[in-house]
Amino acid sequence: MAFDHLGVATNDGAGLAATFEALFDAPLVHEETRGGMTMRFLELGAGYFELIEPNGDGDIARFLDRNGPGIHHVALRADDIGAALQRAREVGVDLVDEEPRPGAWGHEIAFLHPASTGGVLVEFVSHE
Amino acid sequence: MAFDHLGVATNDGAGLAATFEALFDAPLVHEETRGGMTMRFLELGAGYFELIEPNGDGDIARFLDRNGPGIHHVALRADDIGAALQRAREVGVDLVDEEPRPGAWGHEIAFLHPASTGGVLVEFVSHE
Repeated sequence: MAFDHLGVATNDGAGLAATFEALFDAPLVHEETRGGMTMRFLELGAGYFELIEPNGDGDIARFLDRNGPGIHHVALRADDIGAALQRAREVGVDLVDEEPRPGAWGHEIAFLHPASTGGVLVEFVSHE
Repeated sequence: MAFDHLGVATNDGAGLAATFEALFDAPLVHEETRGGMTMRFLELGAGYFELIEPNGDGDIARFLDRNGPGIHHVALRADDIGAALQRAREVGVDLVDEEPRPGAWGHEIAFLHPASTGGVLVEFVSHE
């Protein structure tokens, strides 16, 4: 398993993408709107920033209302998300997603419940 | 520049280290107490989790009081922190640390001000 991306909630995805590109040399490599959000992926080394901007109500809009902009989740790359979820169950971690589901960029994803992981919202993602 | 580590504030560093090791196969590779905090580094791929537990008052205790446990910052590895800070100044980003300073594990570190980076607390770290 390895770090894949850091999810950042923002109300200004285009502006933050420009700042991060200038600051970190992290180019915009993918942009996608789905599920009421626009996601911008900026490449940094072997990983990404995922800037998530809500287009209406939903989880990200609520997160922004409650917390303001900032880090929303961390995504870890797993070759086999099903196996990673099974391991999480065995460790006693609560799952948000019992099965992998389609995420941005054609990747499979699944989230763990942050109450089980020290308040950290963890996503497993597979590029397979 | 590349992802180096994700800083996580916690009141139970030992317990969370055990959970993350079991869940992510991320072994504890370094533990250090300095500046009123105990920091535990867990290796994951080419990066780390840094679990930060306060031993008294200070920034991390205040963060936990205000936000509860969870992600505190992201650290990006830079070969030359001085150059990275100069670039940040040119981009108009406010700095917490004007110069690199000693951090955990013998590394040099410097923080950027999150108000300039979309609410994301960014640390530059050099392993040189």
